[in-house]
Amino acid sequence: MAPIRYTLARETIGCKTMSSEKKPRRPKAETPKGFRDYFGAEVTERAAMLGKIAEVYRAHGFDPLETSAVETVEALGKFLPDVDRPNEGVFAWQDEGGDWLALRYDMTAPLARVAAQFRNDLPSPYRRYTMGPVWRNEKPGPGRFRQFYQCDADTVGAASVAADAEICGMLSDALEAVGIDRGDYIVRVNNRKVLNGVMEVAGVLDPSDPDRFAEERGIVLRAIDKFDKFGEAGVRALMGKGRLDESGDFTKGAGLSDAQADVVMGFMDAKRETGAATAARLRELVSGSALGAAGVDELEFIAQILDGQGYGPDRIVIDPSVVRGLGYYTGPVFEAELTFEILDEKGRKRSFGSVAGGGRYDDLVKRFTGQEVPATGVSIGVDRLLAALRAKGRIGGTAQGPVVVTVMDRDRMGEYLAMAATLRRAGIRAEVYLGNPKNFGNQLKYADKRESPVAIIQGADEAARGVVQIKDLVLGAKIAASASVEEWKAQPAQFEVSTGDMVAKVQEVLARYGVK
Amino acid sequence: MAPIRYTLARETIGCKTMSSEKKPRRPKAETPKGFRDYFGAEVTERAAMLGKIAEVYRAHGFDPLETSAVETVEALGKFLPDVDRPNEGVFAWQDEGGDWLALRYDMTAPLARVAAQFRNDLPSPYRRYTMGPVWRNEKPGPGRFRQFYQCDADTVGAASVAADAEICGMLSDALEAVGIDRGDYIVRVNNRKVLNGVMEVAGVLDPSDPDRFAEERGIVLRAIDKFDKFGEAGVRALMGKGRLDESGDFTKGAGLSDAQADVVMGFMDAKRETGAATAARLRELVSGSALGAAGVDELEFIAQILDGQGYGPDRIVIDPSVVRGLGYYTGPVFEAELTFEILDEKGRKRSFGSVAGGGRYDDLVKRFTGQEVPATGVSIGVDRLLAALRAKGRIGGTAQGPVVVTVMDRDRMGEYLAMAATLRRAGIRAEVYLGNPKNFGNQLKYADKRESPVAIIQGADEAARGVVQIKDLVLGAKIAASASVEEWKAQPAQFEVSTGDMVAKVQEVLARYGVK
Repeated sequence: MAPIRYTLARETIGCKTMSSEKKPRRPKAETPKGFRDYFGAEVTERAAMLGKIAEVYRAHGFDPLETSAVETVEALGKFLPDVDRPNEGVFAWQDEGGDWLALRYDMTAPLARVAAQFRNDLPSPYRRYTMGPVWRNEKPGPGRFRQFYQCDADTVGAASVAADAEICGMLSDALEAVGIDRGDYIVRVNNRKVLNGVMEVAGVLDPSDPDRFAEERGIVLRAIDKFDKFGEAGVRALMGKGRLDESGDFTKGAGLSDAQADVVMGFMDAKRETGAATAARLRELVSGSALGAAGVDELEFIAQILDGQGYGPDRIVIDPSVVRGLGYYTGPVFEAELTFEILDEKGRKRSFGSVAGGGRYDDLVKRFTGQEVPATGVSIGVDRLLAALRAKGRIGGTAQGPVVVTVMDRDRMGEYLAMAATLRRAGIRAEVYLGNPKNFGNQLKYADKRESPVAIIQGADEAARGVVQIKDLVLGAKIAASASVEEWKAQPAQFEVSTGDMVAKVQEVLARYGVK
Repeated sequence: MAPIRYTLARETIGCKTMSSEKKPRRPKAETPKGFRDYFGAEVTERAAMLGKIAEVYRAHGFDPLETSAVETVEALGKFLPDVDRPNEGVFAWQDEGGDWLALRYDMTAPLARVAAQFRNDLPSPYRRYTMGPVWRNEKPGPGRFRQFYQCDADTVGAASVAADAEICGMLSDALEAVGIDRGDYIVRVNNRKVLNGVMEVAGVLDPSDPDRFAEERGIVLRAIDKFDKFGEAGVRALMGKGRLDESGDFTKGAGLSDAQADVVMGFMDAKRETGAATAARLRELVSGSALGAAGVDELEFIAQILDGQGYGPDRIVIDPSVVRGLGYYTGPVFEAELTFEILDEKGRKRSFGSVAGGGRYDDLVKRFTGQEVPATGVSIGVDRLLAALRAKGRIGGTAQGPVVVTVMDRDRMGEYLAMAATLRRAGIRAEVYLGNPKNFGNQLKYADKRESPVAIIQGADEAARGVVQIKDLVLGAKIAASASVEEWKAQPAQFEVSTGDMVAKVQEVLARYGVK
């Protein structure tokens, strides 16, 4: 609830509304379309996961950064200058002063702004991590929201690919820290420079005239980026004459010959048993291209320093089939995939898939300062990783609710509150039922809704005898479901203890269900 | 950095911008006016403080809630219905569908929406806490930002003032949990119903005709709320004929006689040595008013159950001088004040002041459902409490930076990275300098900017001998400042150890400065 300045502001507002509202129509109580609210464990589980990731990032020397949620549209820099009302992709509005402001749509644009704005104050290289919501003005869909969390780590100002290697290793550590076992994930590394070398060999890149074949390369890059969507045949069609989709639409191809396309396809297919063999195959493919050789050198360097720190190929591998983002990044590209299987909507087994990705991009600050600043970073898909932890049984499942002290006797509220306080002092989450105590059944329904493991009951009679009833609600629910008299006798779901034993006995029950 | 869907979205956008941007003017790298970014310790210190508060709230059975940052303007309900472009107080914009959306300006409006929307699913009473940014479209000023944190706890659906007592006790626990010692704070409790009783006695409230004297009461309430600002004379003027301010503006008064005003002023002055004496004085003041007596009963009940849980008058007191928010709340009102002294801008001692406030309000859900739902809650001023912890030396002050492994020999990057990994495995925050290593001075300057306590140095020569140099940067800075040869000899800021001893020796230095 609002104190001080907040109260006053709200009060002022309240008066205004009241005096001028003409039609007392009731507003709809609805989360705006495409937005959602997070309750209870949804909040704590995400916070716990992000906390563990933050610990790993901090240990690596990364500092937290929390930028304002609001940026100038100019700083975000994604709008057509001739559009009066920018609303493509972001939520934007015009300030009193006439400036357009918008909610950030990712964490990279604000990082670029900060790196430029504070370039004289920040250490260089600047390692930072950030976690928070971003907003997209997009059509919402199932599981697709207009506000969601991103969790990014970037290093700004380090030209060495040692920075990329560090991010890959750190990503691997972060996944293990949150509860993804080694063997259940793999970080794959590729390199845009190798692809450039391949394009040079395929004849669509001329290092002496970088603008030549730009259109063809654009088509090849977009085709590669869609490999997961179109498959090999579709990508080959786009590299050659073009692709006709199911709806009859034709997408122009890059015009490569089959031999040229073979070189590009060979790149995506270059993964071998060991990193060394993959690198050797890539070196073969880019033979004659200095650019390509430099890319292979980078991959080998990354593999070597990661090996030296214990990140073997069971955790991080060179894999040229990682093509997502190759069109955007300028050097190393990486992706973390969870390799364990889950059942999809149709009950078919499939591997869980990608939960994080990133790479090197060198134009971060250039828009602001004109200066090229090398940067590399990774973004973890927060909701996907949470879903993975749920699928693996790492989070959820245990009763999270507090012990509920019920109210048998309204006049003894003070004593019930003192009981809850006694439980809390012993580290037990506990509360008193504060609704109308008249109907005791409602109190137990409440405890049920709260997912409470235990209820405490003390009427005037019990109080006089110095005892309380402890009701094991987990067992109670089990008995209500399966109901055998023998089970009930062996371990009754409700039993009486002396008030002095209450804490110890409650702890016993909680320990049985792993409640903390 | 952006993976997967984010990358693709950004790429599409990037292309568009590039192709249609006519004038390549550089955007300004600036946080929007009134907004700010939070770096490093600013983020971690706030998160740590909120984490401790959350623990206390959770222990009391409160569940976290994180609503969407965006609400429909209709649900926020603070705009004039005849204004086309709502922008008073909030940041709002029109959705494609024509709906107006806005950023939340506090945590109470979203709670009201959630309590109405999910009334069939939520437990009742519903205890929830929430922590996050809110946005105000107000003129920014020094220390006054357009985005700031709120941290609220509310109980919805509990008519008993035991809920208010619980919140007061929990607030007291939360303050102690974050590091405010007992004796350095006080939670004061007042009650709007007592004030209503006082107004009845003073003749400006007629229980049989609630609308009568409404204007007079409004003036009295606003006057009381401004006691801190106008002082006794100003408030008395507003209760009587009216008040002329310094600029010559006249504010109409409530028209109370001196005797009537005495009754109201007596209320604010009713605090006595003990809670019982205060309650007795209040009972005297409201003599004849059933409403007022009910308010005194509530205060006594709160005091009694808090006493029973160990919240004595050294922590929570009945104090009728708490007048802020009385106009807004409908029952108990509370405020937490930090009582220790700090120096203000002019070097004068003054008590730190209010850091939290709240109370009971019964119209929470009514706007949406027509049903009256009782609610009570508290909001902690996050920035003020952080400032208090800094003033008390509870946070800040220690070097937070990582150990920096410097790079003497570019070819041995892998080994430097492995050294940092070794330090991390021992729980030490550590990183390798990843900028251009050519100028060693730059590396030490970097370590300085990072507030690193220790630098590790190993050239080819040291590597061959199996040793590293450990540079104590805290001591180094001290020596550079005070510089006595004796000190230097007694405890040199740089010393050599065998590689195998690196971790243990670094830990020794870190322990010296309390670095974690």
